[in-house]
Amino acid sequence: MGNNGDYMFQSTMNRIGFTHQVAIPPPQPFFNSLKGSLKETFFPDDPFRQFKNQPSARKFVLALQYFLPFLEWAPRYTFQFFRADLIAGITIASLAIPQGISYAKLANLPPILGLYSSFVPPLVYAMMGSSRDLAVGTLAVGSLLMASMLGGEVSATEQPKLYLHLAFTATFFAGVFQAALGFLRLGFIVDFLSHAAIVGFMSGAATVVCLQQLKGILGLEHFTHGTDLVSVMRSIFTQIHQWRWESGVLGCVFLFFLILTRYLSKRRPKFFWISVMAPLTSLILGSVLVYLTHAEKHGVEVIGHLKKGLNPPSLTSLEFGSEHLMLAVKTGIIMGVIALAEGIAVGRSFAMFKNYHIDGNKEMIAFGMMNIAGSCTSCYLTGGPFSRSAVNFNAGCKSAVSNIVMATAVMITLLFLTPLFHYTPIVVLSSLIISAMVGLIDYEAAVHLWKLDKFDFIVSMSAYIGVVFGSVEIGLIIAVTISMLRVLLFIARPRTYVLGNIPNSMIYRNIDQYPVANSVPGVLILQIDAPIYFANASYLRERILRWINEEEDRLKSSGENSLNYVILDISSVGSIDTSGIDLMKEVKKNIDRKGLKMVLANPGSEVMKKLDKSKFIENLGHEWIYLTVGEAVGACNFMLHTCKSGHVTHETAHLDNV
Amino acid sequence: MGNNGDYMFQSTMNRIGFTHQVAIPPPQPFFNSLKGSLKETFFPDDPFRQFKNQPSARKFVLALQYFLPFLEWAPRYTFQFFRADLIAGITIASLAIPQGISYAKLANLPPILGLYSSFVPPLVYAMMGSSRDLAVGTLAVGSLLMASMLGGEVSATEQPKLYLHLAFTATFFAGVFQAALGFLRLGFIVDFLSHAAIVGFMSGAATVVCLQQLKGILGLEHFTHGTDLVSVMRSIFTQIHQWRWESGVLGCVFLFFLILTRYLSKRRPKFFWISVMAPLTSLILGSVLVYLTHAEKHGVEVIGHLKKGLNPPSLTSLEFGSEHLMLAVKTGIIMGVIALAEGIAVGRSFAMFKNYHIDGNKEMIAFGMMNIAGSCTSCYLTGGPFSRSAVNFNAGCKSAVSNIVMATAVMITLLFLTPLFHYTPIVVLSSLIISAMVGLIDYEAAVHLWKLDKFDFIVSMSAYIGVVFGSVEIGLIIAVTISMLRVLLFIARPRTYVLGNIPNSMIYRNIDQYPVANSVPGVLILQIDAPIYFANASYLRERILRWINEEEDRLKSSGENSLNYVILDISSVGSIDTSGIDLMKEVKKNIDRKGLKMVLANPGSEVMKKLDKSKFIENLGHEWIYLTVGEAVGACNFMLHTCKSGHVTHETAHLDNV
Repeated sequence: MGNNGDYMFQSTMNRIGFTHQVAIPPPQPFFNSLKGSLKETFFPDDPFRQFKNQPSARKFVLALQYFLPFLEWAPRYTFQFFRADLIAGITIASLAIPQGISYAKLANLPPILGLYSSFVPPLVYAMMGSSRDLAVGTLAVGSLLMASMLGGEVSATEQPKLYLHLAFTATFFAGVFQAALGFLRLGFIVDFLSHAAIVGFMSGAATVVCLQQLKGILGLEHFTHGTDLVSVMRSIFTQIHQWRWESGVLGCVFLFFLILTRYLSKRRPKFFWISVMAPLTSLILGSVLVYLTHAEKHGVEVIGHLKKGLNPPSLTSLEFGSEHLMLAVKTGIIMGVIALAEGIAVGRSFAMFKNYHIDGNKEMIAFGMMNIAGSCTSCYLTGGPFSRSAVNFNAGCKSAVSNIVMATAVMITLLFLTPLFHYTPIVVLSSLIISAMVGLIDYEAAVHLWKLDKFDFIVSMSAYIGVVFGSVEIGLIIAVTISMLRVLLFIARPRTYVLGNIPNSMIYRNIDQYPVANSVPGVLILQIDAPIYFANASYLRERILRWINEEEDRLKSSGENSLNYVILDISSVGSIDTSGIDLMKEVKKNIDRKGLKMVLANPGSEVMKKLDKSKFIENLGHEWIYLTVGEAVGACNFMLHTCKSGHVTHETAHLDNV
Repeated sequence: MGNNGDYMFQSTMNRIGFTHQVAIPPPQPFFNSLKGSLKETFFPDDPFRQFKNQPSARKFVLALQYFLPFLEWAPRYTFQFFRADLIAGITIASLAIPQGISYAKLANLPPILGLYSSFVPPLVYAMMGSSRDLAVGTLAVGSLLMASMLGGEVSATEQPKLYLHLAFTATFFAGVFQAALGFLRLGFIVDFLSHAAIVGFMSGAATVVCLQQLKGILGLEHFTHGTDLVSVMRSIFTQIHQWRWESGVLGCVFLFFLILTRYLSKRRPKFFWISVMAPLTSLILGSVLVYLTHAEKHGVEVIGHLKKGLNPPSLTSLEFGSEHLMLAVKTGIIMGVIALAEGIAVGRSFAMFKNYHIDGNKEMIAFGMMNIAGSCTSCYLTGGPFSRSAVNFNAGCKSAVSNIVMATAVMITLLFLTPLFHYTPIVVLSSLIISAMVGLIDYEAAVHLWKLDKFDFIVSMSAYIGVVFGSVEIGLIIAVTISMLRVLLFIARPRTYVLGNIPNSMIYRNIDQYPVANSVPGVLILQIDAPIYFANASYLRERILRWINEEEDRLKSSGENSLNYVILDISSVGSIDTSGIDLMKEVKKNIDRKGLKMVLANPGSEVMKKLDKSKFIENLGHEWIYLTVGEAVGACNFMLHTCKSGHVTHETAHLDNV
């Protein structure tokens, strides 16, 4: 102990000329700091950088390119690219047609809407989107949400026209909301849906979608409107006698076929084609089978007549004057957020692979425009589904042209091929949905979360349970609330650590993390690990005083020197509000009252500014603020050894040369 | 530059043997870490510490003392203390009687309830409360809230009995909610009402209360049910012809008298007594005046008959089966939170003055019990109003016995003196309320907030405007929402800084704050100032890459050496979730792709643990994690100078001795 003290004393003497002052930053005009923080909040990606010092003609071209990214890449587009995009486009079209029909059924909408929705929106996205790999199409979860939210007030079977119009209206508002988020640069709102929450939510939604398909597989006519596990199970097991074995057998056969091909292509990547072609093959096989066996007369339900022709306009169908307007707005906002969260995550992960950049706000504008355009041309909610985009990527797409190819293929189908789907059995669509959804139930991700971060696991599981046993909205609300609570809890209960000296250095670190670190006699060094806000000020006051009391008790019981200094390392205190400043004043008062001296180490510029404005620095003494913990300890030791009387009178003993 | 490089190289060579390893903390059993964080969240004040190593009889006594703090101080209570408490108690009683009657009128309840509420609750608090200075009584804001929330559904004039019963029920639920917060140790929920929000909210509520008194001052019979400025002004100016000048003159005279005495006692502290006695004096003067002039027959409304006798029981009046139960619960919860926020802030600030400790959770239990007991004995919501507690403190109270004295004085009033209040004019009560409320409109605090922290000012003003132009609930919701948004915004947009070397030291600091700091050639040092969570992961990814791109552009344009290393100082990253880990992986991938090397400095133990579990450390190389930025820079420089070929191949060049 004596050695350590001497060492410290020596090194203090050596360094006393070198201690650094923490300057108070010059006051900034309020307008400047406001501008700075607004810019960092809303324009973190600095989208105007490329506009700087450009002639206005060039600025106009750049602005056009910003909103229509295809203008940027189209001039450089080559035939090689087109060949790749053609193959990828045809591949995703073969997936888009059966999936479109299935998901429209899931949303309780006419099946043809699924095809319409794969025609106009992909064309819009190809112009405006910045992802090269995203394949546009309807979403399973979006369709489910629409069915459960709109269906709660308006029955799709009793008022099909109103339901259809509300679906367009909700899509319109989803688009407006998405585009508004992008224009107002509020894209970060989507970030508050954590990855863990999305994993749980998506798995839950996939489970619910699978459960809903039992209706089609078992050929039931009546089914619950609820989406939760309990209602569905009750609905199924109360009508065992209505189960249709023909339908069930057909469904199981196709499901087995689809899952087998998926399994095969996972084992051998070169069989990738098999699993991609499987849905369309099932559709054709199923239709041919029904046509030949006339199974539609033996309990196997078929799609029936599909109208030939391209999307009819639906602008006049938007129900702005309806009493259900608020429902449409609410549904639109929730669907819009979910579609964005999935679409942007998908776009970002593929951009990461191929090393190009995706602008979240620009994507939101593209998604929004695509849905607004869609709602006027008889489409419902579209986004960038993961499964279809992954197929697009694997098929080797090079640009958004693959979406144009897909749209063209769908157009041809709409114009000429719709009669072919007359005999397509519903049960095959159900199998298609189940096989697509099973892949989304991501139990491996849940295991991964459990291993890495228990709290994320809890968020994920709550979202899953909320969706499966409650409803899609309940799951979403639970997931967002728990994620928020975590953030708030972090703020409300920041960590505080005792620091010690790493031997033979000027470094001070948490003694729990570094057991070699030694405490400094007479000095308690505390580190605060979060901004000091109203939400944690009273906790921090209690916690800091408890640290001091515990240290005094410890010293008393071990008979060591008494405590003289409390150093607060506030390097990590990025920000402080008025409650935080009051806390600092109260802590100082308490420390003074105990006859100790408070010392600050390494305050940031914002904290310095506020402490200065509130006269705290004047009150503490500017000379008691040090750049590093090491220098603060040095000064404390210097004072302890200089004033050998044992009791340091802090009022007079200032280090005037510091 | 060369010199600097050489200096760095030399110092690196000197220190290379001294670099410190950042160890991966040993894995802790999940149960232990859960227990630790639960303890820190719910028991930060470690209330069980004193129970350790005590015999069970002593434990029982300690537990009793915990819930009934008077058992602790009663044995040490002296006659000197009692004399001081007697004077303070009589002083606050002289304030409690007129205020009680006024506030009960404000809550649209029979005036006698104000007296009842100053009898039972203070006795309960004296047993259970831990503050020595808090004076218990009804609250202006609580009364207003009750009138506006209950009055929205049930009219106090048309269904007075139902209204009264709902008031008791709401008080009961307020008490249950308060006690539950205390028992469940959720007291920190109250901390989420920031000081700035409370200042604005209280000032707004005081303004609204003053506006409501215009009814009494002007002697109006019909008045709006709304509390907002616009409704009140419309209500007043549409019935100018109903204004009663007798009432108005009397009101203004008393108001002038009250404000004058308050002003005098502020100027000369020895005239403190005058302002304390002024309310009771006004009451007596007003009553005598009315009695002598028979003004009650000339448009001056009086209180009228008050029933003699103590509190009747009201347990059977609690309306648990009513259709308005949910309203009572909601009102109770909001009133309960507001009462707690004020009461605990008041208790804490006086405890701070006198240097004793207040346990927030214990206070909540005391408040809750006092309101539960009150609701069964014809009292309505009580708390610790600031004005009355300040008078108690100034009158020299020593313990909660002053509350008992006050309760006794009120008891005597209830038993014998109620007939004296028969002729008390309502207009005097209105003057009393206005003079009490004017002091609560804290414009100085608003100016202080504006100077110190613009954001807190905005929170405060929004709460004020919300209360004055909307309603009390709207103001509260706005204030809480904006306060939360600030916290979330801090998390969503953490600061990142570029660090530079402070000359002649191993210290690295933000180059914006310390303009003397020099950047290190070939090395970019970034500091991240917040935990990395889902809410900021995508922002941080973009921001870090933007820093790197900007630095590369800068180096290219100035023709300096190219960038070789990116050091991330993550000292302040207290916590990381799975999205944060994904961010680190993506940033590393991006940095690798640019041909640079990522280096970490000073990760905390939790971050180290998670980075290790996710195999990030394995991927990065444990030797690229340093204890300080200085050591990281040293190692980078060593590498740069050793591998003179210019291009460092990171895969092979490991510092094996580190």
